[in-house]
Amino acid sequence: MKLYDLDLSGNCYKVRLLASFIHTPLNIIPVDFMQGEHKGEKLMQLNPWGEIPIFEDEDVVLRDAQAILVYLANKYGGEAWWPSEAYLQAEVMQWLSVASNEIQHGPNMARLIKKFGLPGDHAQCIANSNKILTLIDNHLSKNYWLAANRPTIADCAIYPYISVAYEGDVEIVQYTNINAWMLRLEQLPGYISMPGNSPTDNVCDS
Amino acid sequence: MKLYDLDLSGNCYKVRLLASFIHTPLNIIPVDFMQGEHKGEKLMQLNPWGEIPIFEDEDVVLRDAQAILVYLANKYGGEAWWPSEAYLQAEVMQWLSVASNEIQHGPNMARLIKKFGLPGDHAQCIANSNKILTLIDNHLSKNYWLAANRPTIADCAIYPYISVAYEGDVEIVQYTNINAWMLRLEQLPGYISMPGNSPTDNVCDS
Repeated sequence: MKLYDLDLSGNCYKVRLLASFIHTPLNIIPVDFMQGEHKGEKLMQLNPWGEIPIFEDEDVVLRDAQAILVYLANKYGGEAWWPSEAYLQAEVMQWLSVASNEIQHGPNMARLIKKFGLPGDHAQCIANSNKILTLIDNHLSKNYWLAANRPTIADCAIYPYISVAYEGDVEIVQYTNINAWMLRLEQLPGYISMPGNSPTDNVCDS
Repeated sequence: MKLYDLDLSGNCYKVRLLASFIHTPLNIIPVDFMQGEHKGEKLMQLNPWGEIPIFEDEDVVLRDAQAILVYLANKYGGEAWWPSEAYLQAEVMQWLSVASNEIQHGPNMARLIKKFGLPGDHAQCIANSNKILTLIDNHLSKNYWLAANRPTIADCAIYPYISVAYEGDVEIVQYTNINAWMLRLEQLPGYISMPGNSPTDNVCDS
């Protein structure tokens, strides 16, 4: 299985994180994002959206991190990470929508503007971020995990951009339930970090 | 099964449309959106996001149209509308993400600004709309349905806001493959319209 990947992308990290949790090896193909390789002919054939991650498993080609999570969990993760029962699956699905919408237009976009210089309304992204982080924090005041009372692909989809939110000047220290949940996720067997959320990233600060 | 509903909401219509396709009766509870009933204590208890649709099926409470589609299709629609096979399910999932993100921030938002007076950058929404409509039109030049070679919840999630896109001044006449696909969907047994996409809505124009 191939993952066309950028190590700094939270969307690519979602896939790497789940694959690690479920012990599924990926053949990581680094994409030269800064040189626009994702907009080149080869990758545009695989994903006309011009985005990464792109995932290949023999004849299967998928774009969109949430869809790749569903595929990997369904095929290789078993019931644990993507429940088949209607209500539990819909509970997880609610959070996949949040990952596609509110997280994308909150902490993800704030980071793209601050860290990568993309155009956009940073103040609006901060406001969006605080709105969704407050909802998530309230939810986690009564729940250990986002859905189904256990770690699922909902957590894999939501955690990445929150874990590097500070790179977009989104403060998360006040969201105590989110911080406790992140710590729980980071202690799961198989957890891997990404650049920016790893303990080693702050070595220069100490 | 209860649906807290607004007839003018494309997100509520997604649920009504699928329920009609799969012959699943819903108890429709109209929400007084203009009076802010969705932000009132009762509905905020059911959905802290302060949005509709909200869906109840005995102890099950769900927000987010895409999650409700997954629930209904999984529980009442059978394999046809929400395939269980990993690749087909992930193909559908790609479009549920598009419904949550690109459609929301394209034709849906353009309509909210034009028809309902919400604040926002209408020109940006038009640009977003044309980008995603072009991608969808290209996809439909080689596919009869969005995913899995058959009508699925992908179509139920994407069709509604395109079918009323003109209300947000989003032109769709040039997207010939989209228009052909919409016609195919409208001819499926069980299809129901919403205000704005019904043949009777244009009576005053004739």
